[in-house]
Amino acid sequence: MKDTQDIPPEHPITLEKVGILNLKTLMKIDRHNQEFRHIPTITIHIDLDEQKKGIHMSRLIESVTELLEEEVARKHHSLEEIGKDILEKLKQKHKFQKSGIIIDSELPIYQKTPASKKDTIEIHGITVEVLHDGDTWSKVLTVSVTGNTVCPHALSMNAGKTHIQRARGILRVETDFNNEIPLEDMVEVVERSFSSRVYTLLKSDDESFVVSRMYENPLFVEDVCRNMLALSRDRFSSCTIHATCISNESIHRHDVYAEGKVVT
Amino acid sequence: MKDTQDIPPEHPITLEKVGILNLKTLMKIDRHNQEFRHIPTITIHIDLDEQKKGIHMSRLIESVTELLEEEVARKHHSLEEIGKDILEKLKQKHKFQKSGIIIDSELPIYQKTPASKKDTIEIHGITVEVLHDGDTWSKVLTVSVTGNTVCPHALSMNAGKTHIQRARGILRVETDFNNEIPLEDMVEVVERSFSSRVYTLLKSDDESFVVSRMYENPLFVEDVCRNMLALSRDRFSSCTIHATCISNESIHRHDVYAEGKVVT
Amino acid sequence: MKDTQDIPPEHPITLEKVGILNLKTLMKIDRHNQEFRHIPTITIHIDLDEQKKGIHMSRLIESVTELLEEEVARKHHSLEEIGKDILEKLKQKHKFQKSGIIIDSELPIYQKTPASKKDTIEIHGITVEVLHDGDTWSKVLTVSVTGNTVCPHALSMNAGKTHIQRARGILRVETDFNNEIPLEDMVEVVERSFSSRVYTLLKSDDESFVVSRMYENPLFVEDVCRNMLALSRDRFSSCTIHATCISNESIHRHDVYAEGKVVT
Amino acid sequence: MKDTQDIPPEHPITLEKVGILNLKTLMKIDRHNQEFRHIPTITIHIDLDEQKKGIHMSRLIESVTELLEEEVARKHHSLEEIGKDILEKLKQKHKFQKSGIIIDSELPIYQKTPASKKDTIEIHGITVEVLHDGDTWSKVLTVSVTGNTVCPHALSMNAGKTHIQRARGILRVETDFNNEIPLEDMVEVVERSFSSRVYTLLKSDDESFVVSRMYENPLFVEDVCRNMLALSRDRFSSCTIHATCISNESIHRHDVYAEGKVVT
Repeated sequence: MKDTQDIPPEHPITLEKVGILNLKTLMKIDRHNQEFRHIPTITIHIDLDEQKKGIHMSRLIESVTELLEEEVARKHHSLEEIGKDILEKLKQKHKFQKSGIIIDSELPIYQKTPASKKDTIEIHGITVEVLHDGDTWSKVLTVSVTGNTVCPHALSMNAGKTHIQRARGILRVETDFNNEIPLEDMVEVVERSFSSRVYTLLKSDDESFVVSRMYENPLFVEDVCRNMLALSRDRFSSCTIHATCISNESIHRHDVYAEGKVVT
Repeated sequence: MKDTQDIPPEHPITLEKVGILNLKTLMKIDRHNQEFRHIPTITIHIDLDEQKKGIHMSRLIESVTELLEEEVARKHHSLEEIGKDILEKLKQKHKFQKSGIIIDSELPIYQKTPASKKDTIEIHGITVEVLHDGDTWSKVLTVSVTGNTVCPHALSMNAGKTHIQRARGILRVETDFNNEIPLEDMVEVVERSFSSRVYTLLKSDDESFVVSRMYENPLFVEDVCRNMLALSRDRFSSCTIHATCISNESIHRHDVYAEGKVVT
Repeated sequence: MKDTQDIPPEHPITLEKVGILNLKTLMKIDRHNQEFRHIPTITIHIDLDEQKKGIHMSRLIESVTELLEEEVARKHHSLEEIGKDILEKLKQKHKFQKSGIIIDSELPIYQKTPASKKDTIEIHGITVEVLHDGDTWSKVLTVSVTGNTVCPHALSMNAGKTHIQRARGILRVETDFNNEIPLEDMVEVVERSFSSRVYTLLKSDDESFVVSRMYENPLFVEDVCRNMLALSRDRFSSCTIHATCISNESIHRHDVYAEGKVVT
Repeated sequence: MKDTQDIPPEHPITLEKVGILNLKTLMKIDRHNQEFRHIPTITIHIDLDEQKKGIHMSRLIESVTELLEEEVARKHHSLEEIGKDILEKLKQKHKFQKSGIIIDSELPIYQKTPASKKDTIEIHGITVEVLHDGDTWSKVLTVSVTGNTVCPHALSMNAGKTHIQRARGILRVETDFNNEIPLEDMVEVVERSFSSRVYTLLKSDDESFVVSRMYENPLFVEDVCRNMLALSRDRFSSCTIHATCISNESIHRHDVYAEGKVVT
């Protein structure tokens, strides 16, 4: 008996992406001899031929859950390696021309506070996407990092007074699977692009350090976006790089933003 | 034949609130001869006796949809009037001891910019809750308004430099149904509590006005919260008043907040 | 004196989109002699030449707020007309090569329940985007509509029993500005693509009607997506049409989805 | 020189809660010899005397970051232990009468699929709150778990056909700090309360198992809520227990819900 999925559909239209969304799971990676554990939200998709009614969704899930049994901590050194492994497993279980996996998670980075040199830990949003088409493998890495903007126009018009606000920088790098781009380097690029980087812990001396840095480095959202692109261009080769900065204006109810792209 | 809802439940436990959540509908009100249209998200709940398996959910919806047929624009002058009307209709359709309706929407207020005196429109979040228990009617009105905070501690430590950020003030007033508290007055109270109120449109002169106001009026999140409580205490009698201020710190990834209460 | 925005930036990189995000405002339109009021969330963006440090953000806002003074209700018949008007105003105030506006709002549609023929009102998510590049104008219309899916595979394997769940269909149409595509027709296409359309109000007879319809019309998420594409292909000419269906599986914690595209 | 925080405020009003919100950090616990790592979102609050303008926010953060230096994995066996430790540290740094910490995170639980007995991992939402008032310590534990509801009324009216949908059960237990209530037991109570529990992985046999279970166990949202309360009453002593079930109706755009409480 044929599975319902394998009969012809009413409308023979090829679908680009069919799969699962908002799947939560556990992933362990071993990086520089340090274990990281992620509880990411993942998406997995494959294309669907016009002759088949549906895909076998449980095979996508199995490609994820079987990794749990295989002591993943010993084998993977990055989320993109896990992603590639899942798609390779999937290829054994389900026919497709194109497939992809998107892994949304968070990256903790240990820091020292800028003046008092105390320990602090900073958590950044990350997305790791692996794409497989025929024989080629590529990836898209994204980091989302908080910082701030200080308006240079207001500063010049108001004798040293200005408006300041929290901002978010989103840096996305598309490249070959084997082009190694550490997420930590991407976070560093975004942090250096703001008027000032921000910290979870700031003692009084640290606060003064950050405040002083902000007034010395007033930047529009456009400046932060261009800084992200210029720093990325110098650092990440053979990539298409997208940068977005969103500033939660302190003098408005709305946000302002800037988006750009460079190819290296 | 008995409806399934009316048979005894397996576990005879009284439930405090049973009803519908995230219902979107259209509401029209006529206020000071101006028509307002809302597409609110609403919640309606009643209590459920331990002897009944379920409530008749469609009667809650009918109490809302029947209003649509009755040309509501001609009859209601506020969202709380609509809310009360819905619960009174519901009382004819379904037995209960306690009931409540929560209407989440937005309030547009026309303003002039502070220096250039141009027209601008400001949209604020509002929630109108009507509660009915036996013979008594009460209400809970909430506004959520954007403004800013300017750190007085950093300002005093850094020779006129400080950190500034967007903040949100949430003011909640619980009172008898008949105690008239205009939502616009509640918005006004919150806006006056910040370091500066904010505007959708700011020409260069207006921006300087707001920047200057911020530095003259540095406030902690605690100060904004207390301002909201002190101004409310003077203005709204016979109420229990809750105030919360949340500040999206520009030097941190996290927010800071303050919450308090006064009874008038 | 030169505005800070007009000086050369540190990094001469052209930016594709600079503008405002999450701006809330009030928009009135007159459609078939019926007034609609929207409180949309809007985005406006223009490109920025590599020789300028920033754009003049307040001119984007002014292009919106000036409409408020001009009694918009008398002049606009759709959100895309308002969008075009805003970008045309903006062109007078600020130089650009490309610009765009995205208007996110909600569309109320009056319906009759399927069996009892009672009045009900259904609210759908809509996004209207207008794009301007040199001399050309185009638009992207999107509707997001709730319905359901009924698993045909489980139904065939379990003697008439299956799993059923809420689903969402998102239909996006890209076309010339002057190609008139009513949002109501797009909603109709999505509703007809599900196992059954859903209603805010359902009396007992209506509920039986919908339940019966669901079991007669079991559909995978792939089927719903293809239905949306096939129905759109027949109805909307000279368009690029994207369809996505997301099903909130009742037997899983995650969702499943299907995405496809046709060009007409 | 006095810190700005220590001067008297303009309005001498005691504030109930002042603190930090949306702080992300890393927490490690060692439970049954298994290491769990959390990247929770946390809130910490203390009360503020009417004589002080503000609290010293950085001391709240320090109470969190200092734990990072102390090799927390070796010392804590639960999130509530970490929470208590943070508040005890804070007490050394900052005067208060009342304090609290709220830790939002996720709990992975290994399961076997119901028929094929394959490995699967299920991730549930959890919130651990620790409250300290004078000399007393208490806690509030919450789990948020996905399952489904099957309408018994529709089933009885439509000859074995009905509507089915995803639902969420939220169970909250308030008790003394020392009353040990495993989060896993709370998840188990919620899962047993639904028409059927759900799984991330379901092979064809498992799917039939779950579908069959759903039709044998039709439940209103009210039934699920009462099941949660009845099962909790039997299992958790000396607690105040709140249960909420929210059902994402497959025949409506809105949700239905039920809320109740028992004291044990």
